[in-house]
Amino acid sequence: MEDAVKKATDVREKVCEWRSPEQLKELLDLELRDGGESESKILQRCRDAIRYSVKTTHPHFFNQLYAGMEPYSLVASFIVEALKPSLYTYEVAPVFTLMEDAVLRKMIEMIGWEEGGDGIFNAGGSMSNMYAVNLARYHHFPDIKEAGLSAVPRLVMFTSQEVGLTGKFKGSFVLLSQSELLCVFFRGKMIPSALELLIKTAKSEGAVPFMVNATAGTTVLGAFDPIQEIADICEKYNLWLHVDACWGGAALMSNKHQHLLKGIHRANSVAWNPHKMLMACLQCSAFLVRDKTNLLQRCHSSSASYLFQQDKFYDVSYDTGDKSVQCSRKPDAFKFWLMWKALGTGELEERVDRALATARYLAEEIKRREGFRLVMEPEYANVCFWYSPPSLRNLPDGPELWKKLHTVAPVVKERMMKKGSMMVGYQPHRDKANFFRMIVISPQASRLDMDFVLDEIHNLGKDL
Amino acid sequence: MEDAVKKATDVREKVCEWRSPEQLKELLDLELRDGGESESKILQRCRDAIRYSVKTTHPHFFNQLYAGMEPYSLVASFIVEALKPSLYTYEVAPVFTLMEDAVLRKMIEMIGWEEGGDGIFNAGGSMSNMYAVNLARYHHFPDIKEAGLSAVPRLVMFTSQEVGLTGKFKGSFVLLSQSELLCVFFRGKMIPSALELLIKTAKSEGAVPFMVNATAGTTVLGAFDPIQEIADICEKYNLWLHVDACWGGAALMSNKHQHLLKGIHRANSVAWNPHKMLMACLQCSAFLVRDKTNLLQRCHSSSASYLFQQDKFYDVSYDTGDKSVQCSRKPDAFKFWLMWKALGTGELEERVDRALATARYLAEEIKRREGFRLVMEPEYANVCFWYSPPSLRNLPDGPELWKKLHTVAPVVKERMMKKGSMMVGYQPHRDKANFFRMIVISPQASRLDMDFVLDEIHNLGKDL
Repeated sequence: MEDAVKKATDVREKVCEWRSPEQLKELLDLELRDGGESESKILQRCRDAIRYSVKTTHPHFFNQLYAGMEPYSLVASFIVEALKPSLYTYEVAPVFTLMEDAVLRKMIEMIGWEEGGDGIFNAGGSMSNMYAVNLARYHHFPDIKEAGLSAVPRLVMFTSQEVGLTGKFKGSFVLLSQSELLCVFFRGKMIPSALELLIKTAKSEGAVPFMVNATAGTTVLGAFDPIQEIADICEKYNLWLHVDACWGGAALMSNKHQHLLKGIHRANSVAWNPHKMLMACLQCSAFLVRDKTNLLQRCHSSSASYLFQQDKFYDVSYDTGDKSVQCSRKPDAFKFWLMWKALGTGELEERVDRALATARYLAEEIKRREGFRLVMEPEYANVCFWYSPPSLRNLPDGPELWKKLHTVAPVVKERMMKKGSMMVGYQPHRDKANFFRMIVISPQASRLDMDFVLDEIHNLGKDL
Repeated sequence: MEDAVKKATDVREKVCEWRSPEQLKELLDLELRDGGESESKILQRCRDAIRYSVKTTHPHFFNQLYAGMEPYSLVASFIVEALKPSLYTYEVAPVFTLMEDAVLRKMIEMIGWEEGGDGIFNAGGSMSNMYAVNLARYHHFPDIKEAGLSAVPRLVMFTSQEVGLTGKFKGSFVLLSQSELLCVFFRGKMIPSALELLIKTAKSEGAVPFMVNATAGTTVLGAFDPIQEIADICEKYNLWLHVDACWGGAALMSNKHQHLLKGIHRANSVAWNPHKMLMACLQCSAFLVRDKTNLLQRCHSSSASYLFQQDKFYDVSYDTGDKSVQCSRKPDAFKFWLMWKALGTGELEERVDRALATARYLAEEIKRREGFRLVMEPEYANVCFWYSPPSLRNLPDGPELWKKLHTVAPVVKERMMKKGSMMVGYQPHRDKANFFRMIVISPQASRLDMDFVLDEIHNLGKDL
């Protein structure tokens, strides 16, 4: 625990101790054998596992849409692991069933669904988005559960191309194919007029539009689709509006920034992951739905007789298991409930504001420093930028420069991994050459850390 | 931790301290507010959460297909929670990526796929089964990813009606409707000749059979479908054979009992949850596939540019994220790896043998004791039985008796919950009146515990 909790979060330690797959296999002795091992040997194996793991809780880990260590949430995680509850029914998970309900109701309040709603914590944002497709389809075609997919017309849904992996509808369980998932072209976000045009075209070709997925906080750029205008179009064409706010939902906590999600109260469903910006422990992912007619349960129920007996001695409407597509389901809401209780909404709001102020500081520093260039002005906590080493700074803008710039980020990344000083992601994006993507999550990230990141990138790449 | 780990597993303590939803809401003060709370208050909230939770690790918890506390696995869980790794890529989860691979390879070896295979740990048995449907469909119709569901004929799959909630294909993401999911009638297990007949009928009606789901260890009765015969039929008709061995897979560990799954090496895919009989911490659920052509990745890849850059400095074939339908994915394999390493295959085998011997003892006791009656001879660790209080013992067999017997289990269950002495499930099953289902998982369950259960049921129900 000393190693995994304290050392891992110590800024003086390394973020990672890089080993290649081949080296690591040798170091770890992964083979499982007939005989067991002594306790001291197992303890050493735990130490090794910790040592060679990436410390995602380290103050210089900026590689994903989550980071840092929230101590209250961690305590809740430990309790959950020790008690091994699973949310089938009230009788096996009474405390956590009620806590999930309390958290969902509070999240629904923050979305602005004044008449309430329903929801379920689940195994991640992809699953939330798949719930949305399922509900939207079932809402439009309640017969689908009996008659099957072959009985419905060709359905199409619309999304911005900006959806990240959490929005990977394509080829996934929901099996919307490329011809059924239409992308709305954009510059960072969905363009409502283009959306309307696509809907009209699809209808004229005999397909049946049923859903729009708007993204609030895209994975790479942190962009927000204009929900208000999209909601107008969804109402006009009777389409289910789902908002993937897995990453951007946290802005709802902030009076200053909630305008980014203006109109979200008009959505039919929302995905929102407190394990991202709000730092609840992994996983903590909520799917929320405005419907009050028990659609979630009607769509997914299988009424297993060994769990959902109707002759129980308590109010079985508390049994949540039949809303879920999972059977065993962990009480992830508790990890959010406990920290929320400890910190209060006020502190959560401050954290979001602080993170976005720090991201803004970073963006200004990038504009100020030679060799750094923003990909776009950040709306949220994603700050995307290129770094040019001195050797490239005097080249004229053109394909030659971009081709060279494209090779810089991978080398800097390799060097930072091998040094273990920090982790920052990079990627190409459409026609754009490889750029860095910084993700700023408070309270762990300070202005000093931002300076450190830019200094370190320069140090690692200046000879290129 | 004292409360959640030591007291929870102490046989002298209660399994649960029952409160109704209304009482519990008052006790817990669930409301989330603007202001935070002091550390001492939060500590008290943790204590309360533990106190009113069901102790699934208690020696007298027999309510689900998992139970007990495996200390090595719990340590692994704590490490995972503290480090917050997520299995997108080798670079963010190097240790756990390799461990997952090692565990999958060993499980594949135990299934008997001599040429190897592939697999992925995921959020639960339902998800494994959905992976299977996806792969089977993609295997038969590789165009589906481009052309969509509307481009394929009416597909049908076959399963025994005995599939539990983990097999809830119907109405779930895969959206096989009632007309697309055909059940093979049975007495506890699938009848191969009935399966063949259904396949022929479906074909003659113009539908396209593509998959059979055989169950190894059903949820209620613990029955095993005859895999060998089903595999013959699948070969004959070119159908994907998936074996749902979430619960029964543990028998593969035992030389004595692996015959229950004879023929499993002929399956195309297998679901196997080490968090059930083998006591790895929740969740620990593996989907395994015999294919060696990267089908899992081909079917599910979305090639997100911000994760799966091809210009990385290491062998990117170690990046597992593109096989998954989830984005964030916890390293559940580690919870199994560490305990397996500590105990060795030998001890795991002994545990399975011990559990099945204890279940056998319980069955014999039931036959011996007045007022108890087996529903069927157990094949595995599920022991299903009725209890008749003395007042019913002299009634003639007939609808009147069964109607009365049906009401016994719910009352006994209510009383055991309120007393907190143990938890045993009950359910009706097809035409059978409510019966108890004991689930025996070693090493926590002893013969003394079996005697205790039968004594306690009698004590709680003798006046009915």
